[in-house]
Amino acid sequence: MKYLSILGSTGSIGTQTLDIVRQFPNEFKIVGLTANKNSDLLLKQIKEFKPKAVAIMDKSKFDDLLNFSSCQVYSGIEGLNKIATLNECDTVVNALVGSVGVEPTYHAAKNKKNIALANKETLVAAGSLIMEEIKKNNVNLIPIDSEHSAIFQCLNGENISEVEKITLTCSGGPFKNYSKEQLKNITKEDALKHPTWNMGAKITIDSATLMNKGFEVLEAHWLYGIPYEKIEIVIHPQSIIHSLVQFHDKSVIAQLGLPDMKIPIQYALSYPKRFPNNQQQLDLVKIKNLEFKEPDFEKFPCLKYAYEAGAASGTLPTVMNAANEIAVYAFLDNKIRFLDIQRIVKKMMDEHKIIKNPNLNDVLEADKRTKENTKKLVKEFGQIDISA
Amino acid sequence: MKYLSILGSTGSIGTQTLDIVRQFPNEFKIVGLTANKNSDLLLKQIKEFKPKAVAIMDKSKFDDLLNFSSCQVYSGIEGLNKIATLNECDTVVNALVGSVGVEPTYHAAKNKKNIALANKETLVAAGSLIMEEIKKNNVNLIPIDSEHSAIFQCLNGENISEVEKITLTCSGGPFKNYSKEQLKNITKEDALKHPTWNMGAKITIDSATLMNKGFEVLEAHWLYGIPYEKIEIVIHPQSIIHSLVQFHDKSVIAQLGLPDMKIPIQYALSYPKRFPNNQQQLDLVKIKNLEFKEPDFEKFPCLKYAYEAGAASGTLPTVMNAANEIAVYAFLDNKIRFLDIQRIVKKMMDEHKIIKNPNLNDVLEADKRTKENTKKLVKEFGQIDISA
Repeated sequence: MKYLSILGSTGSIGTQTLDIVRQFPNEFKIVGLTANKNSDLLLKQIKEFKPKAVAIMDKSKFDDLLNFSSCQVYSGIEGLNKIATLNECDTVVNALVGSVGVEPTYHAAKNKKNIALANKETLVAAGSLIMEEIKKNNVNLIPIDSEHSAIFQCLNGENISEVEKITLTCSGGPFKNYSKEQLKNITKEDALKHPTWNMGAKITIDSATLMNKGFEVLEAHWLYGIPYEKIEIVIHPQSIIHSLVQFHDKSVIAQLGLPDMKIPIQYALSYPKRFPNNQQQLDLVKIKNLEFKEPDFEKFPCLKYAYEAGAASGTLPTVMNAANEIAVYAFLDNKIRFLDIQRIVKKMMDEHKIIKNPNLNDVLEADKRTKENTKKLVKEFGQIDISA
Repeated sequence: MKYLSILGSTGSIGTQTLDIVRQFPNEFKIVGLTANKNSDLLLKQIKEFKPKAVAIMDKSKFDDLLNFSSCQVYSGIEGLNKIATLNECDTVVNALVGSVGVEPTYHAAKNKKNIALANKETLVAAGSLIMEEIKKNNVNLIPIDSEHSAIFQCLNGENISEVEKITLTCSGGPFKNYSKEQLKNITKEDALKHPTWNMGAKITIDSATLMNKGFEVLEAHWLYGIPYEKIEIVIHPQSIIHSLVQFHDKSVIAQLGLPDMKIPIQYALSYPKRFPNNQQQLDLVKIKNLEFKEPDFEKFPCLKYAYEAGAASGTLPTVMNAANEIAVYAFLDNKIRFLDIQRIVKKMMDEHKIIKNPNLNDVLEADKRTKENTKKLVKEFGQIDISA
């Protein structure tokens, strides 16, 4: 039996995680849940799963919960940290969106919790700090991201020192065949129609700009200690091969499956075991064709920025992530245009003075300041560009 | 350092194995070699690798070796058994062709040698006996066959009880798009032009009839203890995905690589390590497309016969293999036509009275008698059909 705290239980990954918990009542017990502001759904989850404690990020929703709930209720980032470190919890599922995940993940590791991580921004923003705590406390960090779950599975029983190359596959996003001109006029509605995976809004936009794939490059670097020059990206529109590992004997191991987040979520929870389920099985004959092509770094420069941020290291990835986070929400709010996202990310990265080997405060400070400055920049972009 | 005896050192797999030994002189030492009748090449190999002892199957070549060789020389099946059980040897590479491999493999396992197996006919003809000795003596049986090397690698760090399905990929052979009518007129030269892998003559014909894939179904059954209903075949003309394992959580692990036998041979030798090499690496962008389709059991009935032989078990697979062996060499000698191979296999299987749970003598006897009877049948077929 594993005792889980789910951070972000009302989101896309959070609700799918609870679906799996429902299927395996003898394997998992929920001890903590957190939501951003969806107190209605959180209340329903409390009734069903009877956690020991919950937290809501939005402090204005605190009273909704307090009045109806039978468990301990916390709020704000302190509340998230509390749920991530509950005594009764052995495994934290981090299904948060954005850099808000840094602190609870850090504290969870420090408190010797195993971590199932969907929140890649945490590793992008604070990879060195998180990995240090993971190693120091000898806990497992199991990725939920399908690509990293794939790599994790490919490395089962293998020796990381024998890895020659990691290939992250990428659907290419909904705009892989757009011209530069067409990219200018993309609307929020266009971008939210992601072709293969069913995901939350923020990651769907990140998948459209390919920033998401850039983040995954940094995530792979931190999870597996692989240098950036050994991490490549290949466009694979069908999203069936979730990623590949080439060993130095030229043998390649890949993980495949239908694009269904339930599979990697369940694996992260069941690891090192695999539990039988009734998800649809992969049928290659039905799929017929798997295609591969090179990514276009010019049309999707966020990929470039990610490799640059990774190579520069220090607080530059933190800034890239923070600027992107604000820009994506501004795009989702119709405040800026699609291509403004990449422009804003670049501008904030160019302006940043990197702190090498940052501590937790340096990271949180860089994140906070970049978000403030990006909000200002969003206003400028909004004024100049929105009518163009 | 591993101490190797290579059975069949002058054949396709044998010579490629020696290429690898050349590349890693600090990892491997040759202690024994055997050839069928190519005494010239065997003599060269003796000079270069200085084995302790050698054997030649063809007794008429014994004197060639005795006169020139500086090591112990044996001949015949007793000679093969001797080389497979040398005191100095810890690993036997079985690169033989046909059921002649049964006895030396059996004795190698009995003498606690690890076995790297390219000779799939051994497991087809005597799977239960060989696996019994492998388990009893707690030795490794590492497949060299690319499909089974793939499955072996996919199972690294995994639990066999969590496997739901094994998918063997199959190039489809050179005649996958031929009509039934076209199949009638295939010549030896047509059949020897195999599209992807560079292999010996016998396995190339087996790949054209798909008997080879049928054999691999039995091989997978014995190697991994997987029931036949959990082993499927998918046509994959590019031969890049070498096979796949689906676990009961619907996650699929696959092994990929260019169609290059050096990779699985090296893996079988280096296991559990992987050694770095300079073989060409897989480039999915260059390959562009991987295709999959269903095998045609009607056009290639040897696939059906293999599943039937596997299900019936006992000596029926032994007979299937022996009949096929004789028929393939008859085809290579222009004595029968391409489609006669499958007819002869079917006829010999239909006529056989199965012995359940055979011992070694039963297997050797069934093999010998079937080969004699098949030779007679070949003559009949030759008389009736060769002019049609």
